[in-house]
Amino acid sequence: MEKIRIGIVGYGNLGRGVELAVAQTKDMTVDAVFSRRAPETIKTFGAPVYSIDEAINKQDDLDVLILCGGSANDLPQQTPYFAQYFNVVDSFDTHAKIPEHFQAVEEQAKKHQKVAIFSVGWDPGLFSLNRLYSSAILPDGDDYTFWGKGVSQGHSDAIRRIEGVQDARQYTIPVESAIEAVRRGERPTFTSREKHLRECFVVAKEGADKAKIEQTIKTMPNYFDEYDTTVHFISQEELNEKHSGIPHGGFVIRSGNTGKAGENHHIMEYSLKLDSNPEFTASVLVAYARAAYKMAQIRHYGAKTVFDIPPAMLSPKSGEELRKELL
Amino acid sequence: MEKIRIGIVGYGNLGRGVELAVAQTKDMTVDAVFSRRAPETIKTFGAPVYSIDEAINKQDDLDVLILCGGSANDLPQQTPYFAQYFNVVDSFDTHAKIPEHFQAVEEQAKKHQKVAIFSVGWDPGLFSLNRLYSSAILPDGDDYTFWGKGVSQGHSDAIRRIEGVQDARQYTIPVESAIEAVRRGERPTFTSREKHLRECFVVAKEGADKAKIEQTIKTMPNYFDEYDTTVHFISQEELNEKHSGIPHGGFVIRSGNTGKAGENHHIMEYSLKLDSNPEFTASVLVAYARAAYKMAQIRHYGAKTVFDIPPAMLSPKSGEELRKELL
Repeated sequence: MEKIRIGIVGYGNLGRGVELAVAQTKDMTVDAVFSRRAPETIKTFGAPVYSIDEAINKQDDLDVLILCGGSANDLPQQTPYFAQYFNVVDSFDTHAKIPEHFQAVEEQAKKHQKVAIFSVGWDPGLFSLNRLYSSAILPDGDDYTFWGKGVSQGHSDAIRRIEGVQDARQYTIPVESAIEAVRRGERPTFTSREKHLRECFVVAKEGADKAKIEQTIKTMPNYFDEYDTTVHFISQEELNEKHSGIPHGGFVIRSGNTGKAGENHHIMEYSLKLDSNPEFTASVLVAYARAAYKMAQIRHYGAKTVFDIPPAMLSPKSGEELRKELL
Repeated sequence: MEKIRIGIVGYGNLGRGVELAVAQTKDMTVDAVFSRRAPETIKTFGAPVYSIDEAINKQDDLDVLILCGGSANDLPQQTPYFAQYFNVVDSFDTHAKIPEHFQAVEEQAKKHQKVAIFSVGWDPGLFSLNRLYSSAILPDGDDYTFWGKGVSQGHSDAIRRIEGVQDARQYTIPVESAIEAVRRGERPTFTSREKHLRECFVVAKEGADKAKIEQTIKTMPNYFDEYDTTVHFISQEELNEKHSGIPHGGFVIRSGNTGKAGENHHIMEYSLKLDSNPEFTASVLVAYARAAYKMAQIRHYGAKTVFDIPPAMLSPKSGEELRKELL
């Protein structure tokens, strides 16, 4: 069997995760890593590295390109651009800009007869799928999404930008009593504060005003002011030792009712507990790269989301095997 | 907007659940209930009732037929038969006979250009989907399916067939410590006994030998002999009062590893807690009836499972709404 030939664009935590995830499959291979950095400075687990400028010369050598750049600055340009030349998968996660991203990607993918699956990962991605399945099945119901316990890169970065801060790590923590209330079927309405806590581990620069740093964090608009936030000042050594992992996870819960008068109650719950957010996200991207390859084979071109992909396309197994082993 | 016109074949707990579930939608209507019983003896929530023999005369009046008969005796004949005339959805759940059922249904549906989605429900169904998604994403991992706490009709029936038993209700209960071991990432191997308990509430006939009944239950091959089983003898009144519901549920957990040497561990967990097994299963069938209608519109004919259906087809929302609201 010929393997599906994958190219990786961008070789940070996510790109490395993709290379490792492909190595766990039997039907795929990473044939190229593309980077803006000088190729000779990048050490992969074995895949050859090229300058990103060479990517479009490799059209005939790769089946799917997995785009591992950031949603803020890379993917809005890269995904429509590469969709001219390759089937692509990205993890675009700026919720508010998804309609705009779809338009840009759809135009190029349709025009150039490519498959482009965007916003793949766990949220957006697997969590979105669960919101869709459960709301279609229980229309009289409410969705609840909780994130954590996990590291929020965006919130950690926001703290690092504060004057006097040397390093920081922020954990988003779901409020256990809120999850329990949802599981009991109460269908409550929550404020941001009632759903999540924020816990910050901060390394202050020598001589910095810690009280002021703490105050600045706790009152930061959008990021922290609507939450109960705790701040711990620790040493760089302790941060490195105890907080170097990138765990994450969360819960999607549908609470809904059926019956003549809604007398029967049902809870559908999906949860993830992840040691490594980037490695898990990479594993989702790789499964959808397989789907992109299969969609291209049947000429279902255009911009797609997880909502559009028949689940069977994610698996290396045949329809017959799936019906026999997993149904 | 024209509503999707649904017919229901078989009007037991599941058929009633389908009528109620359709009433919760805005885009569907139940235009016919078909039964082998005399139509005048059946009281629906409003849908007209016809003899099952009249069904094939209603081909032009119905978009999808939801088949609510049993997997043992009804569906093996009914699904291929009605797939000659209608788009159909069934809840066929005899795992071992799925390949055979697929062949029979596929032949008719393909030949007559109909869509037939079979084995829809929560297991097979939503649990199967979760086994597929999670195994495609974490190939280095193990799946664990736990059922309950819930009423097993098959086990309850088996007890009722024992001499001296007047009535019975059997609960399947997952072993909490086994679930916890899986959640800790231990990837254990379990015997049947280690995963589930069986709890039986039995009404004995007057003068019956209770010790013998208990012994017969606990040693019954396949049903009980491989499990730790407890038997409680109670009155018919208590059974009616405390055990008349049909709750069920369960857990599908994937425990898997990623990284260079499997050093990062991930848990994907899906669970259902259902007050009414038939009403929830009916809600799943109704969402897939919507998908059957959409698949027929784009002429994707043949026998399908939940693995083959793009998730978006389950929802009444447009692609644009889904991307904006749920992604």
